Amino acid sequence: MSDFLLLTPGPTGVPQRILKALSLPMIHHRTKEYQAILERVNANLGKVFLTRHPVMTFASSGTGAMEASITNLFSQGDLVLSFSAGKWGERYRDIARAHGLQVKSYEKKYAEAFEAQEIAQALEDHPNAKGVLTTLCETSTAVAHPIQEIAKVTRLGRAILLVDAISGLGCDIFKMDEWGVDVTVCGSQKGLMLPPGLSFVALNERAQALVPKSVLPKYYFNFAQTLKAMAKNDTPFTPAISLVRGLEEALFMILEEGLENVWNRHARIAHFVRSKAAQMNLQIFAQSPSNAVTAIGMPGGIVSKDVIKHMRDAHQVVMADGQGELQGKIVRFAHMGCCTMKDAERGMHAFQDALAKAGYEIPTGVL
Amino acid sequence: MSDFLLLTPGPTGVPQRILKALSLPMIHHRTKEYQAILERVNANLGKVFLTRHPVMTFASSGTGAMEASITNLFSQGDLVLSFSAGKWGERYRDIARAHGLQVKSYEKKYAEAFEAQEIAQALEDHPNAKGVLTTLCETSTAVAHPIQEIAKVTRLGRAILLVDAISGLGCDIFKMDEWGVDVTVCGSQKGLMLPPGLSFVALNERAQALVPKSVLPKYYFNFAQTLKAMAKNDTPFTPAISLVRGLEEALFMILEEGLENVWNRHARIAHFVRSKAAQMNLQIFAQSPSNAVTAIGMPGGIVSKDVIKHMRDAHQVVMADGQGELQGKIVRFAHMGCCTMKDAERGMHAFQDALAKAGYEIPTGVL
Repeated sequence: MSDFLLLTPGPTGVPQRILKALSLPMIHHRTKEYQAILERVNANLGKVFLTRHPVMTFASSGTGAMEASITNLFSQGDLVLSFSAGKWGERYRDIARAHGLQVKSYEKKYAEAFEAQEIAQALEDHPNAKGVLTTLCETSTAVAHPIQEIAKVTRLGRAILLVDAISGLGCDIFKMDEWGVDVTVCGSQKGLMLPPGLSFVALNERAQALVPKSVLPKYYFNFAQTLKAMAKNDTPFTPAISLVRGLEEALFMILEEGLENVWNRHARIAHFVRSKAAQMNLQIFAQSPSNAVTAIGMPGGIVSKDVIKHMRDAHQVVMADGQGELQGKIVRFAHMGCCTMKDAERGMHAFQDALAKAGYEIPTGVL
Repeated sequence: MSDFLLLTPGPTGVPQRILKALSLPMIHHRTKEYQAILERVNANLGKVFLTRHPVMTFASSGTGAMEASITNLFSQGDLVLSFSAGKWGERYRDIARAHGLQVKSYEKKYAEAFEAQEIAQALEDHPNAKGVLTTLCETSTAVAHPIQEIAKVTRLGRAILLVDAISGLGCDIFKMDEWGVDVTVCGSQKGLMLPPGLSFVALNERAQALVPKSVLPKYYFNFAQTLKAMAKNDTPFTPAISLVRGLEEALFMILEEGLENVWNRHARIAHFVRSKAAQMNLQIFAQSPSNAVTAIGMPGGIVSKDVIKHMRDAHQVVMADGQGELQGKIVRFAHMGCCTMKDAERGMHAFQDALAKAGYEIPTGVL
């Protein structure tokens, strides 16, 4: 599989430096060595989340961290406003419902994004709302939300703003503290270039103040215990040591390149993919596209599956189909994490070839 | 750190073959390649858990799987009987309480183990109990419970038997189906020789029948969804792909050696460590010792911490102190997972040297 280029919206390809860190000899976690690693990792997570607040790391997929942000910050019956523009926004809403929160659900047609004004209006309509659930990059539609603007309207009231930044962080510009985001949820296998298996939740003071008030039952995902342990560079439960060592390397790589440069690289690559698709007369599905992934609408008569299969078989390039009702209709060309312009060019070449093989006439001069 | 010998009760050392598997290039999980891996892994997990029932894998520490076994099989107010002989048994009890179960707690003095007759009596006293919470190897005291006998008395009634086999599985003899264990909980970083980050729950039919009845809120740890996905070699959420590839290799290694041989190796090593300690006139702390780890009582005037520090600094051998009230009083000499007799000998040499340095007079002829 080593010649395969993973342009899927998580997991992404994992750079050699990180793969090497994953296979370091095991060390025990209740040691000075591990504490030192954790201290560096926690400090560097702050530099990537752009927060001076604690960024907690859990052994779980991103969904676990989403659930943790509900069970540790709210109680049964609390009203939260959910803004979903795709499968991941819906998941956040469903998790809140599963735990007995009262959820007012706002939903966008797939491809569309919410504007800050809509959140402001919803908050005005529901002054007793305790939380606002949003998504930075809605991976299922490749839509990015204007979190900076949303945070501006949210921080005026008492509702906290929770952002699922699982696939957006490290790809789309995101400034937790400067923007006033209260809770940031993330996963390892997207912008952070790691294998799946780690998830993150960052909490500012407003969010931390809610932790002792939440009475929802919880044990494994426990913010109070985690924050307490973090102060001593410890974790309440055995951490996923090898993944954390990979994380240490991933954060070094991001900070070496510079977070602004990482964002700019994603912006350049996203621009390249979108321009090429536009030149091919294809539809950029998302109305407000993310720089982490581009969803490209399939022209009439062509289904994503065939295009994806050809890319894989003939070019060893792996992209993703749409999910749910979007299956067959879009190809998700991800360019998150360690993706370089060269990778994107290889991906675009494979994409063009696959479309041509499927009978689509690609305008001259685009190839 | 590569010259360090990890004789801690999880994480254990990770063999080179597994480290190599952890650093294989990333693949996507919604592919035939990954499905094939998962199919092999799930089949081989059954051969190590000795069950024909599904063994579910989660991205979490073992505590997550313990919690999952409570939230997916019981409902608020259900009565469970908890048999704890140390920190881990207490954790299982605390998790059940955290989720509103009615818990009748039976507790042993540290070092002691429950006998099946005590569980039989408790079940007679509480005929409406729905579950029995036990521990195979209580890692904190190195006590092993007679699960075969306990299962014999439990399966007569309607209460299901849940066994925390996190540190015992692959070390102490454990036969899930033959013995009639209903629920087996496990973790990756003990007998399975992996880094921490994966956890497991195996369910027989009796336990599976309880899944649809449980109304406790849950989302990330969801047995119904996991079982449904497993039938298609899938997982409901993004799996910890690199750890699962390590798991594939770990299971190959165990099955190559042969599970019986693995148990015998653990028994031989445990016997060696216990005999040597006895020859040194030291106390084997556990009255019913596990083959996964040996807890050795410190002689008067010597604290574990100093012995452990010397082993580490002078011999690069890492063992663990006692936990909680046992801190300073015992050294936990673990011999689980990939531990060889040679490793145990190196550990024993370091242990003897450290005790001698601390002023303990080791009987002649033992060294």
